[in-house]
Amino acid sequence: MASENKSWVTAADVARLAGVSRSAVSRTFTPGASVSEPTRKKVMAAASELGYQVNIIARTMITGNSNFVGIITAGFDNPFRSKLLAPLVHHLALQGFIPLLMNADDPQQLAPSLRQLLSYHVTGVILTSGAPPLSLAEEYLSKKIPVTLINRHADLPGADRICSDNAQGAGLVSALFSQQGLHRLAFIGEDAANFSTSQRWQAFHQCQPQAVALFCPNGGYQAGWDAAEKLLADYPDRQGLFCATDMLAMGALDYLRQHPAFSAIKVVGFDDIPQASFAAYQLTTIQQDTDQLALLAVHSLLERLKNFSQPSQQKTVPVQLIRRHSA
Amino acid sequence: MASENKSWVTAADVARLAGVSRSAVSRTFTPGASVSEPTRKKVMAAASELGYQVNIIARTMITGNSNFVGIITAGFDNPFRSKLLAPLVHHLALQGFIPLLMNADDPQQLAPSLRQLLSYHVTGVILTSGAPPLSLAEEYLSKKIPVTLINRHADLPGADRICSDNAQGAGLVSALFSQQGLHRLAFIGEDAANFSTSQRWQAFHQCQPQAVALFCPNGGYQAGWDAAEKLLADYPDRQGLFCATDMLAMGALDYLRQHPAFSAIKVVGFDDIPQASFAAYQLTTIQQDTDQLALLAVHSLLERLKNFSQPSQQKTVPVQLIRRHSA
Repeated sequence: MASENKSWVTAADVARLAGVSRSAVSRTFTPGASVSEPTRKKVMAAASELGYQVNIIARTMITGNSNFVGIITAGFDNPFRSKLLAPLVHHLALQGFIPLLMNADDPQQLAPSLRQLLSYHVTGVILTSGAPPLSLAEEYLSKKIPVTLINRHADLPGADRICSDNAQGAGLVSALFSQQGLHRLAFIGEDAANFSTSQRWQAFHQCQPQAVALFCPNGGYQAGWDAAEKLLADYPDRQGLFCATDMLAMGALDYLRQHPAFSAIKVVGFDDIPQASFAAYQLTTIQQDTDQLALLAVHSLLERLKNFSQPSQQKTVPVQLIRRHSA
Repeated sequence: MASENKSWVTAADVARLAGVSRSAVSRTFTPGASVSEPTRKKVMAAASELGYQVNIIARTMITGNSNFVGIITAGFDNPFRSKLLAPLVHHLALQGFIPLLMNADDPQQLAPSLRQLLSYHVTGVILTSGAPPLSLAEEYLSKKIPVTLINRHADLPGADRICSDNAQGAGLVSALFSQQGLHRLAFIGEDAANFSTSQRWQAFHQCQPQAVALFCPNGGYQAGWDAAEKLLADYPDRQGLFCATDMLAMGALDYLRQHPAFSAIKVVGFDDIPQASFAAYQLTTIQQDTDQLALLAVHSLLERLKNFSQPSQQKTVPVQLIRRHSA
């Protein structure tokens, strides 16, 4: 594609029209940079009038920084991760960042894609739950690129971590079952190595030491169905079932419904995906605050950009019990 | 963030180690460029050995091109659009493109985000179904940036269009109802101005001139529930219901179930989102081939990059009837 017909208004043009310095224009368009509100307004008005588009590519060449933030996720089909994606894109955009989306599901493309992220001099990287191996995070950190993990475990110096309060969630489920007089309980989780599953199970087990647990190869619908079948073959007397994801819970619930002997068993999920509220499920669940998870993730990147060598931080986001008909 | 500790292997280093020209290295890393298989292999081996990361920012400065392709979508919560996102990211990555994701749901951010896409000299833009206004496409085209629309209508010279075969899908639904001896039919769609809804309804109406139609403010679950309630208040004798999306169908289905008088009504959706196969729904539906939609969209961008002024093309992707229990 030829570029001869493209002409670009420069930051100097904007500075001239706004009656401010070139540096004030630059700061207005730099995420996290300090600029007074009146100056910002003058710059934005002039930029809008001239149709100014920040030439970020040129700025990247000069400063070594870009406005790109990589989002590395897996399982676009996973409704919880889709629900998290919208506020992530939103809060990144509010700070002037452009999200580069990488699908860690795609083994054929993961390595070249991550190398590409490096070649774009990404300003930071957000890893969500799911498949991306943590060794990747180490590669970014070694290049002094900030890394924030959402709902992931990591003991990586320099990586910040934003997590839903899994222990609080498990405690809420345990309290609900106790309040309903249910004592023969079970837990269905993803692979026991999965961070969220293991946190939820540990906290639930602490509250309910008699509970039994079954772990699945993944957190999907069919896995929940299969786990319910297997679990109830061994423990047909269960009264309450806590599932580590809503998808597991929906699969388990559908299995229970096809077996009248199990129709009284109460089921609670985790996530509060949109489908949990559908009439066919009316799933009682623990709601994760995706907006807050995204906001804190973006803020932690901004803080680390200002001071890369500060100690790793962890922030925990409260969850909420959403009561519907399944428990 | 300081960049003083980053050092980058150059294309010249790779060329030297591979024993090829600098231009061969460049072509190996340029989407759509021609390079022989033995040369490509030598380059990739050398690049891998040296840990070479294409300095795309520098290349963009020099050539005016980038590897960025904007994906402008709306409704990350929409399971069909999430299902389409994975193959789009995959097929873009296979061609060396990096997807820049824009959420058109966010009125506060849409205009600045789209201006940002321009500032990054995106190589092309893919607009999916949903909210993004087509005036945006015109702005990109005026800057000679290729635009491909998925499941969107447009009479824009230079914009290519990839669509599922809505007429085929509607015909399959009509034939299924006829085969089951159902003649009192209804259609529930999104807003009548929505491209996919209007195509599906027109084709269905042509096959079934007696069918009645109701259009909703959106294509979601609650809209389907409400539409079924309203429609059946006026036409309680319906035998078959064709819904323009699976989400509408799931909402309608749940409404029907709560009303025993309507429990015999057959329901068919459109999309084949993962939830359609859940035991609670077992929704008969028309499956869109998301992988093929994504592949053709990426190929149409590549073709137009080679020849920007070729006439607009439209490609239609066949759909498939997936029979489950709802019809």
